[in-house]
Amino acid sequence: MTERKGPVDSTRSRHARWRTLPLTSVQLDGGFWADRQAVNRRSSLVHAYRMLKAAGNFHNLRVAAGRANGDYRGRNFLDSDVYKWLEAVAYELAKAPDATLRQMAEEAIDLIAAAQTPDGYLNTYVQIVTPDSRFSDLDHGHELYCAGHLFQAAVAYHRATGSPALLDVATRFADYIDGIFGPGKRPGTDGHPEVEMALVELYRETGEARYLKLAQFFVDERGKGKMRGLGWYGPEYHQDRVPVRQATEIEGHAVRALYLMAGVTDLYLETGEQALLDAANRLWRDMTGGKLHLTGGAGARYEGESFGAPYELPSDQCYCETCAAIASIQWNWRMLLATGEARFADLLEQTLYNGFLSGVAADGEHFFYINPLLSRGGYERAAWYEVACCPPNIMRTVASVEHYLATTDASGVQVHLYSPASVSATLESGERVALRLETQYPWQGHVALTIVETGAQPWTLRLRIPGWQEAASIRVNGQAANTAARAGTYALIVRAWQPGDRVELDLPMPPQLLEAHPQIDATRASAAIRRGPLVYCLEQRDQDPDVDIFSVQIDARAPLEAAWNPDLLGGMMVVNACGHALDMNGWAGHLYRPLGAVEGLPRRPVQLRAVPYFAWANRGARAMRVWIPRAADRDSR
Amino acid sequence: MTERKGPVDSTRSRHARWRTLPLTSVQLDGGFWADRQAVNRRSSLVHAYRMLKAAGNFHNLRVAAGRANGDYRGRNFLDSDVYKWLEAVAYELAKAPDATLRQMAEEAIDLIAAAQTPDGYLNTYVQIVTPDSRFSDLDHGHELYCAGHLFQAAVAYHRATGSPALLDVATRFADYIDGIFGPGKRPGTDGHPEVEMALVELYRETGEARYLKLAQFFVDERGKGKMRGLGWYGPEYHQDRVPVRQATEIEGHAVRALYLMAGVTDLYLETGEQALLDAANRLWRDMTGGKLHLTGGAGARYEGESFGAPYELPSDQCYCETCAAIASIQWNWRMLLATGEARFADLLEQTLYNGFLSGVAADGEHFFYINPLLSRGGYERAAWYEVACCPPNIMRTVASVEHYLATTDASGVQVHLYSPASVSATLESGERVALRLETQYPWQGHVALTIVETGAQPWTLRLRIPGWQEAASIRVNGQAANTAARAGTYALIVRAWQPGDRVELDLPMPPQLLEAHPQIDATRASAAIRRGPLVYCLEQRDQDPDVDIFSVQIDARAPLEAAWNPDLLGGMMVVNACGHALDMNGWAGHLYRPLGAVEGLPRRPVQLRAVPYFAWANRGARAMRVWIPRAADRDSR
Repeated sequence: MTERKGPVDSTRSRHARWRTLPLTSVQLDGGFWADRQAVNRRSSLVHAYRMLKAAGNFHNLRVAAGRANGDYRGRNFLDSDVYKWLEAVAYELAKAPDATLRQMAEEAIDLIAAAQTPDGYLNTYVQIVTPDSRFSDLDHGHELYCAGHLFQAAVAYHRATGSPALLDVATRFADYIDGIFGPGKRPGTDGHPEVEMALVELYRETGEARYLKLAQFFVDERGKGKMRGLGWYGPEYHQDRVPVRQATEIEGHAVRALYLMAGVTDLYLETGEQALLDAANRLWRDMTGGKLHLTGGAGARYEGESFGAPYELPSDQCYCETCAAIASIQWNWRMLLATGEARFADLLEQTLYNGFLSGVAADGEHFFYINPLLSRGGYERAAWYEVACCPPNIMRTVASVEHYLATTDASGVQVHLYSPASVSATLESGERVALRLETQYPWQGHVALTIVETGAQPWTLRLRIPGWQEAASIRVNGQAANTAARAGTYALIVRAWQPGDRVELDLPMPPQLLEAHPQIDATRASAAIRRGPLVYCLEQRDQDPDVDIFSVQIDARAPLEAAWNPDLLGGMMVVNACGHALDMNGWAGHLYRPLGAVEGLPRRPVQLRAVPYFAWANRGARAMRVWIPRAADRDSR
Repeated sequence: MTERKGPVDSTRSRHARWRTLPLTSVQLDGGFWADRQAVNRRSSLVHAYRMLKAAGNFHNLRVAAGRANGDYRGRNFLDSDVYKWLEAVAYELAKAPDATLRQMAEEAIDLIAAAQTPDGYLNTYVQIVTPDSRFSDLDHGHELYCAGHLFQAAVAYHRATGSPALLDVATRFADYIDGIFGPGKRPGTDGHPEVEMALVELYRETGEARYLKLAQFFVDERGKGKMRGLGWYGPEYHQDRVPVRQATEIEGHAVRALYLMAGVTDLYLETGEQALLDAANRLWRDMTGGKLHLTGGAGARYEGESFGAPYELPSDQCYCETCAAIASIQWNWRMLLATGEARFADLLEQTLYNGFLSGVAADGEHFFYINPLLSRGGYERAAWYEVACCPPNIMRTVASVEHYLATTDASGVQVHLYSPASVSATLESGERVALRLETQYPWQGHVALTIVETGAQPWTLRLRIPGWQEAASIRVNGQAANTAARAGTYALIVRAWQPGDRVELDLPMPPQLLEAHPQIDATRASAAIRRGPLVYCLEQRDQDPDVDIFSVQIDARAPLEAAWNPDLLGGMMVVNACGHALDMNGWAGHLYRPLGAVEGLPRRPVQLRAVPYFAWANRGARAMRVWIPRAADRDSR
């Protein structure tokens, strides 16, 4: 067993502008996310356990442990699904004990420990199928990728339960890897980034500086143009075209790209190397300036599951993998910690409520791998996948969402997301503060924040004013606060707080039409509906029977109306719009005609009914679209 | 050697409405296609011979023949590239002798014959790599696909030269296959259709009815839902989801789909089974009503190289494989023969001049595999491909283009394509007729047709009036002809022709703006330029230095102007349009904004210069677009 040096303060990375809070410092008190966590805890985690059994993940561990016979089952990265699920279980166990979940987790951890070889190596695919070929296919073998997920699970489980069992497995494997790879040892890095951020976390949890150095090594090894790529793609597929510090474009496989950037940002948080943060900022600008869907979805192409060219953002055949949304959330969180800039929290929230949350069904037992912005029907969430990276990744994200709610720094507390919650934190002064948040966010934009506990010294409360918000207002104890509440910034309130002080943040949420950059083909002359942080969509099933969502236009001059629908999936705010149904018979059988030959399609006014994008495909697999063509002038007048 | 039963009349399929002409009945007399055939003969065919050497195709044949040692090189379908190249050489040898080409061909045929096993089997991949596993992977093995290309080459070479050498190889292999597959024998069919139409041709050339029956068997075996598919695709990838006669949608891998339909139509031409023609018509309507690019390009998706959903027709990430365009030409030709309906000739011409011809560079030595309608730059034709299906497929198509120019039936002669040419035919009456065509098509729409030879009996001349043509006129010996010349039909002139009679067909070619079906996302509120059969595009290099083709709009109300540019790639008609360059700085760094936040981008008038789509990327690899956003009303007034 590795000697522990004792953790560095896991909430204080040396170069973080803002500090994360310990795992249990935020408790959700009901509301939107608590509801989803309840489904996740009650249904998803148990469903995943069954699926991991059925798909062979546990079987592979048993065979590797010598406790069963048989062939390896599934793709070569199946171990990682177990680790991600364990990480999710850990976050739930941190919230409240649960004998069933605990027993499932202990059973899995026992198997994992038994499968580990005496020298510390652990990968059931290699152990069963190619036992003499460890790390022989770094490009596609996923050994370090699986290791990374093990490390993350181990850190979470240790933080959640205090149990060292999985952390011991992780550190033994990390030490084994560290004995093989590194300066003066073997070169190379994994084709699928993930181990970088995991090693930084393992360093934070154990204090073992070798892990941080190894993370740095794996980042430094990347970009030598040696990896094979896939299909039509060269090394850019694997984030290996250019060294990280020289990169100017986000490219290649989206999950790989975003996990890598999360790891690079983690490395910056510990080392402060400006070139890493500069590269991360360049790639973030490249992504948000041309390569991101409105939902926060990343990855425009099926081919290579990859980012496309700037402005290549189709609604139908986009990939927008759920794991890419998760990776983007992780990266943006780290960028927020590094810089304190609200743009990162904005994108985190945009992604969380839309392109991420669409990944899971209301029942918690069906999942999207791909999250398009347009479906012509027939596309549904599946109970599991042959490549099942997304489902347990969703589970660990839902289970830990309160982690993104608040941070602290020397000056006080920052609130990033709004949910009913209790937040406690110890300021640098040593003062303990506690807050309570009450809100119906994201359905309503009113947030009440009550100071529950505070010392006498003044401190600063920062409240995030979302980028979509142009009319925020803040009152303190009923009086208008003397602070700027500009969109896309943090409003500051400096005060000698008293218990019982009450801050009211008002974020009006009129439904709004958005347009997209004129260079995007797929969204030209169209509009999308947004209300608060939620992107909306038209589902065919909500329209009048004679209205085809692919033959409608939206009237951009007519008002949008938000309405609460208590019967929709437990209650949701829907948005109604005015539009026209076009009679497209003039085009029947034709795809291309001389301009004007079919000018002025017959039309009739219709109501369009929109629901939150994340909620689509929960009531059958009919057609859906986010972007709606806008009526030309003649139609709107 | 197989006993020959003697050919059926290869120009008269029993259920063809119109009969093809023998190989040498049409001679091109200069003009657009003759120029391209000269490049093909002089450069492409020799280039291909070098490439086939370098890529290992000949090497594989030598190894299989026992004349060389070594491993198999390349993918498992490399034999087919040799066959397609041989077919192209055959067409050229039919036009005029050429000692070099003949020697190359004989060398290849000698190798092929030597590689054939004593029992008739022939596939170098299987013979070298998996000699005990013939036809063990029908889904992906391509053995029957390669056989089909062998048969087509053999028929062409036999027709062109009279040499039986390759035809002997082909019939021996066909007999071998016929001994294995068929009713009461082994079930199954190839994952990549091609052998169906080849077997029908082999039947036509040899009179051997077993080949026709085998073609029918392979068609009947398809659609049982047993093939594995690929990636995200199931059996529809392989055209195996539903039986051909029940199919209602064109789907899956585009080249597979279109080769299959060509074979199905060939089968109809010989058997007259109405269910086959009905299915072909349904799939043609499905394709042209929703799944075809303006260039005639087929296959909307990289993923699976496949057709997309109806109206899923992106400009940038479309596949539009050159081989799919060729397959579409082959299918449309057969549908034209079967039905005599001009819509098939229209699509054949549209595809030939645009989505097919873009596949080859002006130098004849570089080729596109994928033919997008929008390039952001950096995309160029390659000298060869690891999967080199397209280059030799282009060569055989260019070399045989005159085949599509004219047909005969009991009533007379039909002219489908316009080119300077001499056409001779023997009518069913036994009368011999000869025509001469003079034209500068596709650059100008005037066609002069002179009767060179004719008997005294009246016969009917049919002239195709293209679907894009609304103002055709016809004069006979200087007098307006008494015939309808409606777009998308054949104009009929019935007459007791005299040698020297002169028909003048005038097809005015004003440049025209087209719009696309409103349900296509990628082309919404945009226009494309067409002149005659040619689709045009904007190449970045032709615009003023300060004009970015992705920041322009076209003014749909301003006139388009065609102008001859003698310096452009040997002389081409270009089209100039008026438009605006938009200042997009208001969008810098933003992808999505509230509607109206950036209304009214600053703009200035610019000239837009368009060139034929097929000619793009011959002068560097800069950006290109076919579809151009249209200025909104405010801009045009």
